[in-house]
Amino acid sequence: MSMVDVGGKHSVFREAVAEGFIKLRAESVKRIREGGVEKGDVFGVARVGGVLAAKRTSEVVPLCHQLRLAGVDVRLEIVDELRVRAEVAVSAVEKTGVEMEALVGVCVALLTVWDMVKGYEKDEGGQYPLTRIEGVRVVRKVKDV
Amino acid sequence: MSMVDVGGKHSVFREAVAEGFIKLRAESVKRIREGGVEKGDVFGVARVGGVLAAKRTSEVVPLCHQLRLAGVDVRLEIVDELRVRAEVAVSAVEKTGVEMEALVGVCVALLTVWDMVKGYEKDEGGQYPLTRIEGVRVVRKVKDV
Amino acid sequence: MSMVDVGGKHSVFREAVAEGFIKLRAESVKRIREGGVEKGDVFGVARVGGVLAAKRTSEVVPLCHQLRLAGVDVRLEIVDELRVRAEVAVSAVEKTGVEMEALVGVCVALLTVWDMVKGYEKDEGGQYPLTRIEGVRVVRKVKDV
Amino acid sequence: MSMVDVGGKHSVFREAVAEGFIKLRAESVKRIREGGVEKGDVFGVARVGGVLAAKRTSEVVPLCHQLRLAGVDVRLEIVDELRVRAEVAVSAVEKTGVEMEALVGVCVALLTVWDMVKGYEKDEGGQYPLTRIEGVRVVRKVKDV
Amino acid sequence: MSMVDVGGKHSVFREAVAEGFIKLRAESVKRIREGGVEKGDVFGVARVGGVLAAKRTSEVVPLCHQLRLAGVDVRLEIVDELRVRAEVAVSAVEKTGVEMEALVGVCVALLTVWDMVKGYEKDEGGQYPLTRIEGVRVVRKVKDV
Amino acid sequence: MSMVDVGGKHSVFREAVAEGFIKLRAESVKRIREGGVEKGDVFGVARVGGVLAAKRTSEVVPLCHQLRLAGVDVRLEIVDELRVRAEVAVSAVEKTGVEMEALVGVCVALLTVWDMVKGYEKDEGGQYPLTRIEGVRVVRKVKDV
Repeated sequence: MSMVDVGGKHSVFREAVAEGFIKLRAESVKRIREGGVEKGDVFGVARVGGVLAAKRTSEVVPLCHQLRLAGVDVRLEIVDELRVRAEVAVSAVEKTGVEMEALVGVCVALLTVWDMVKGYEKDEGGQYPLTRIEGVRVVRKVKDV
Repeated sequence: MSMVDVGGKHSVFREAVAEGFIKLRAESVKRIREGGVEKGDVFGVARVGGVLAAKRTSEVVPLCHQLRLAGVDVRLEIVDELRVRAEVAVSAVEKTGVEMEALVGVCVALLTVWDMVKGYEKDEGGQYPLTRIEGVRVVRKVKDV
Repeated sequence: MSMVDVGGKHSVFREAVAEGFIKLRAESVKRIREGGVEKGDVFGVARVGGVLAAKRTSEVVPLCHQLRLAGVDVRLEIVDELRVRAEVAVSAVEKTGVEMEALVGVCVALLTVWDMVKGYEKDEGGQYPLTRIEGVRVVRKVKDV
Repeated sequence: MSMVDVGGKHSVFREAVAEGFIKLRAESVKRIREGGVEKGDVFGVARVGGVLAAKRTSEVVPLCHQLRLAGVDVRLEIVDELRVRAEVAVSAVEKTGVEMEALVGVCVALLTVWDMVKGYEKDEGGQYPLTRIEGVRVVRKVKDV
Repeated sequence: MSMVDVGGKHSVFREAVAEGFIKLRAESVKRIREGGVEKGDVFGVARVGGVLAAKRTSEVVPLCHQLRLAGVDVRLEIVDELRVRAEVAVSAVEKTGVEMEALVGVCVALLTVWDMVKGYEKDEGGQYPLTRIEGVRVVRKVKDV
Repeated sequence: MSMVDVGGKHSVFREAVAEGFIKLRAESVKRIREGGVEKGDVFGVARVGGVLAAKRTSEVVPLCHQLRLAGVDVRLEIVDELRVRAEVAVSAVEKTGVEMEALVGVCVALLTVWDMVKGYEKDEGGQYPLTRIEGVRVVRKVKDV
């Protein structure tokens, strides 16, 4: 097993956009929309979580190379009364692509949303019958030639 | 915004099991099954990634409390020729639940799988038309009274 | 040199509140007040930075013990047209006090504010003639007997 | 909110010097001068804390870019019988300035000093009536054209 | 004390190979060979531990510069019935050598082996009469002119 | 593979002492003794490196549990004109032993020594013909019943 050698590759501009969704109860989405979540500003905290996590991708995903990201942009939006969408765009001038960084950002942003609305998602038995992360994917990758 | 005070809660045994799926191309799943992935033992690396990430949840999800996990168990299996499933079980004697730790473990294990089969998932334009993380959820939570 | 042994101490409820100030240009404070900072919601990002940093105190201050914080609360407010104040309250049931955690939270929250309004603080030569962090102190410590 | 894209900027030589002060009781300063602090060599430990923290700035200040620092120099000195001064000089060939790295180094060096003389700073009620971090600022920034 | 300034050095291709040995009881080596270690695949986990640690060298060794490693290759092998050998090869295009990264990788890989066979190494008094890490050295360094 | 469940174990006082040696050239040892190492106070920096690393053991050795260390004591001494010895004592009231923490502390303290005298250890070809870490072992473990 090895972190593959990219020493021979050229540093070029690279960009990746990833997205993902979290299914929530209507109450949680309503509270997010109205600013009624006790733990604070859900999207604000999730955006910071996503940016910080994207920068630490190589510490978390074992075989990812250490990159210096030029830009990270995390967006969160309410899709409908039962779903929130996260989109993370990452750019860098590096030897390897930045899609893993974008995907890590999406996952951590959505997990942060989950963590902040936990109290409204659990049923009386403490279980999460509905909450779910879905559709985490790379929307597009760009690599300058 | 604040990390909610759990000082008044009791430390009791807690357990959480989370799961998630990654959709892959048939070639990737075949290579995982046959040990033909150039970067190494996919499930082996993903399990380690999942365990390490579960332990660092409070560094990544901003409002999670620091917990000392008693046990972390990461399982990966091929579901069918197009899907891999990750299951993470976490236990602790703590004041808060451990579902976020289990979920972080699932996400990082699946992202590690993705990272290791990247080369077989991209199309000729460098895009990922099929790869997707789906169905990340808490299977069950247990809390001793 | 050693991290002093606290094995003989009892775990009791502890709390610490720390505060600190950052002197800014009027334009920066005005933009913070009106939400006109290009990089985003200054106080929102600074609060998350403060919480995350407080939790990682033992990684940053070499001889601090690892604590599990029960609660962290970061507050930011505009004091007057030239100053922002950060207050961080930390609580834990531990063998050592939590004032270092509160102080780290204050410093990182204020540094995050600085980082976000950098563009408005620099003069034409790229220098910071006015920006300054002042008055970082422990407001009070509480220790249950 | 986003970590602003610096992909279009040029990597040039950059340097920043930051300073800050900690007000202490006369006993603490005397002990630092005479090597009588039980926890060990205060300035030695604080210098290491400052260097390590400067390197990890992008993990701590949410919107800071990841930089590879070329040099970090942490200096600590007794100013008078009630004050210690920290000065941190950071250099790098990068696309963004390094003043946040220098400021983080100053804050952590001063916090480490505080942590090591805690026992001499507290009054009989366990409070810190005098200890204070003051005057944290950027002394100068240099950017080659 | 300072992290020496390497700003004037040129980025060239660099490589370093380090090795080290761990002396174990015959039972542990036999179990590793036969896959009979309860905690799991010893070499698999140790390789991941080694790669991740090599990447984080600058966080752990205080005066090491932050490098972006191009490649990391960790190999583990049974030397004889009482010894395991780790070899780590690291490459990068950077201003400083990568031998510390290779050495950190070797030490953490061997420590991970130790951790995983702990149960078979301890005597009835819970002591480790035989286990030992030996011969950790740099096999060779390469630097392109 | 799993981080073994220690939920059923009792928290008792535990202590571990580990040691290790680094073989150096006579010039390096002489410089350490006389304070003539350009990079600074070798033992001072190595002690801080050792303490910080011991606290982060669970991040580095994949299957180690997160522990809160009660005390960490790192000692360094010149054994003879060609060798330095590191000894690390760690204590905690926890469910698992602390020998891995002591061993990580020893390895990182010795690696830090190496890093600081690198310039005196290399031959004219940039190789390390003599430098070596040897005899890393657990001196004793204590566990209260």
